[in-house]
Amino acid sequence: MEIHNSLPTTLRLRRQRLAQKIAFPVILWSGSSSSRNCPISSFPFRASSHFLYFAGLPLKNAAIFLDGDRLELFMDEASAESALWHGEMPKREDIAQRIGADAAFPLSELPARATGAATIALQNPTTYQQQTKILNRAVAPSYTPEGIDRDLAHAITSVRLCHDTEAISELRQAAAVTIEAHKAGMAATKTAKEEAAVRGAIEGVIIAHNLTCAYTSIVTVHGEVLHNGQYHHPLQPGDLLLADVGAETAMGWAADVTRTFPTTGEFSSTQRELYDLVLAAHDTCIDRIRPQVEYRDLHLLAAEVIAQGLVDLGILRGQAADLVATDAHALFFPHGIGHLLGLDVHDMEDLGDLAGYQEGRTRSDRFGLGFLRLDRPLQEGMLVTIEPGFYQVPAILQDSELRSKYQDVVNWDKLAQFSDVRGIRIEDDVLVTATGAEVLTAGLPTDAQAIERLVNGI
Amino acid sequence: MEIHNSLPTTLRLRRQRLAQKIAFPVILWSGSSSSRNCPISSFPFRASSHFLYFAGLPLKNAAIFLDGDRLELFMDEASAESALWHGEMPKREDIAQRIGADAAFPLSELPARATGAATIALQNPTTYQQQTKILNRAVAPSYTPEGIDRDLAHAITSVRLCHDTEAISELRQAAAVTIEAHKAGMAATKTAKEEAAVRGAIEGVIIAHNLTCAYTSIVTVHGEVLHNGQYHHPLQPGDLLLADVGAETAMGWAADVTRTFPTTGEFSSTQRELYDLVLAAHDTCIDRIRPQVEYRDLHLLAAEVIAQGLVDLGILRGQAADLVATDAHALFFPHGIGHLLGLDVHDMEDLGDLAGYQEGRTRSDRFGLGFLRLDRPLQEGMLVTIEPGFYQVPAILQDSELRSKYQDVVNWDKLAQFSDVRGIRIEDDVLVTATGAEVLTAGLPTDAQAIERLVNGI
Repeated sequence: MEIHNSLPTTLRLRRQRLAQKIAFPVILWSGSSSSRNCPISSFPFRASSHFLYFAGLPLKNAAIFLDGDRLELFMDEASAESALWHGEMPKREDIAQRIGADAAFPLSELPARATGAATIALQNPTTYQQQTKILNRAVAPSYTPEGIDRDLAHAITSVRLCHDTEAISELRQAAAVTIEAHKAGMAATKTAKEEAAVRGAIEGVIIAHNLTCAYTSIVTVHGEVLHNGQYHHPLQPGDLLLADVGAETAMGWAADVTRTFPTTGEFSSTQRELYDLVLAAHDTCIDRIRPQVEYRDLHLLAAEVIAQGLVDLGILRGQAADLVATDAHALFFPHGIGHLLGLDVHDMEDLGDLAGYQEGRTRSDRFGLGFLRLDRPLQEGMLVTIEPGFYQVPAILQDSELRSKYQDVVNWDKLAQFSDVRGIRIEDDVLVTATGAEVLTAGLPTDAQAIERLVNGI
Repeated sequence: MEIHNSLPTTLRLRRQRLAQKIAFPVILWSGSSSSRNCPISSFPFRASSHFLYFAGLPLKNAAIFLDGDRLELFMDEASAESALWHGEMPKREDIAQRIGADAAFPLSELPARATGAATIALQNPTTYQQQTKILNRAVAPSYTPEGIDRDLAHAITSVRLCHDTEAISELRQAAAVTIEAHKAGMAATKTAKEEAAVRGAIEGVIIAHNLTCAYTSIVTVHGEVLHNGQYHHPLQPGDLLLADVGAETAMGWAADVTRTFPTTGEFSSTQRELYDLVLAAHDTCIDRIRPQVEYRDLHLLAAEVIAQGLVDLGILRGQAADLVATDAHALFFPHGIGHLLGLDVHDMEDLGDLAGYQEGRTRSDRFGLGFLRLDRPLQEGMLVTIEPGFYQVPAILQDSELRSKYQDVVNWDKLAQFSDVRGIRIEDDVLVTATGAEVLTAGLPTDAQAIERLVNGI
């Protein structure tokens, strides 16, 4: 386990990068299990991503104290009874050694380190209460941090924006399993009777690799519902199935991949035309990725490719640049081109837009830009998704205000010919390299014929 | 959908049964989503079981007001923006009609119903805060309810103890999918390299049926760790794999099933001897089930069967009755024979032992009885698990105090010959009928040869 041997070194380097940006100590909590319906049935524990980044292991009910180069671990030993039910647990000292901690203490010692320490508030309400109690002060929620907590949030985002070798190794593992899972989903589609069956095939592979899902899977013939969490629709001939599923490694690193494929194994001509258009936007954006490129420009580039394609298909009228300037593309591509990816599927969005938006920049209120989650120049080591789409969303296309505003630029009759396309999205995970980009999820084909072959099992 | 048409009637009957036991109004909250690591990645929403019982649908951020026969629904309508991301949601009035509510209001109207209302505290901390705020009083945690909340908890347990037709229909569905899932797990075992692969096969089937897992699955070659939540161990020839996995329906009703099977498809002779012994305890208990039988007696019966079998195998010395009286059986069978099953896998254990223990009874401090979760006379309509086991738990068998106490009754040399059995459990879900019992999970074989055939795919 080469990776784990290097963990203390990796964590030390992360602390050193953080220490260059702040001059106060830090306490990060891992969190506790969230209860589901009864005590025996909790949700699977997920440690806070900030904790995971600096502690390296998903320890439950633990905290770490960081001060410059120094790392201290705070956690209680498992009880004797716990061994009966949960088996022997590693000792605190063993864990401390594995992560290269300078010292390790029971949690009762943590208040002694609280003075002047900054933290990031957890979403878990139980842990959040502990944070305010132990720090003995108000702690604002993570998306509106205050004082030194805000300084810490800024420092952590700048450290976590670009991934180190150990992180990239984990992200590759998440990507590899995600690729295999999507392939299993495609292979299961022709015999599946409803969406859930394909979801079972995809998630079964992720579970079989002892990984978890990084987020609630979307597996739907109603791709126009952007965050569809329903799986009960039947698969019918002529449907496109949109699968947005990503694995997460044991240490918390995520993949986030979408493919859209015909349930019959064959795109209709209208589906194929729009699929190829979305793919063109996807490929064009990825080709453009390199350090210093503005992510916002990639979004606008995708919008322009889509707008031009829709003009070529006769669905929109006018010049692509004008259509994008007036947000007409957003009638069919209403979300952003993607987001940061790392320990969170929308990396660090617990901090609001602090990570996604460069200091001094804020969300646009434009219809075609407001959902953009990342607005920074790209840097080497960033991992971003590129995920253009085309959707016919009733809430948009039936909206009387939007219909009248875009009355003349949409050829509604032409659009009606594409009614067998409700939603298409193609999403890959792209690592910014020194000279360009590496698609971590490139092992999963995107071109229409290869997709058809996977569905047809050939 | 015959079942849904009957939902208002079912819910009305449940309210009426409750109203016979209390003379105050009730507010039950459904709860909210629990955050995972970032806002986009929440745990799947699970409504409170008490809410589900009386509201019938898994509504997020909702509450119901019960007063005698009357049912009122409180929830807010989805926002317009929500339609873009999550699709069109049913309207409050439509939901109210579906569950037979007498009236429906936004949540802002709920405080008007708070005076004198009892509730059950939720485990979800966010909702728990809302409960104390809206009721404008202290609300004790659910496992130690106080005042009218305690009266309500008593009333609800007596209503929920015995299942009605709609509940049993759901429980049958959970059982049917669980059976299919376990079969898939057995069929996947011979080619699986590690525990996770079998878990993936089992849970994949549950997901494919659009159901969820009712609890964290146990799929392990270390069955001696009773609540083992690890899945990384390799499957080796000679291992027994213990799979304790149950499905939960969309409306929240659970199954809870364990099978133990050889990774090679063939039990060794020592494994087979202990397997058949555990099965004998399982079958003997189920044969004895009928109304009025004390569940505690079933536990002691299982203990006696196991003790006698271990005497016959030469592992224990003495008379079975004496061995049980001195808790010697608990060296190898340290948990209870089972528990209530319903909307929770340990039904109503959010209320501590209020449901499991008849009024006036409390947990024993005996080694062989302390983990018994149910101590009541059985009644028609109760669903219980029967799950005897045999384990070699290091935390028990290496305990110097226990070793010296049971020095003379254990033949340690003989026991060593059974070292290829770390843990065996056989668990089924048994409905108490008017004259006996119905095993809802009987479609999944228990006898050793049938288990071997399933593993061997024949």
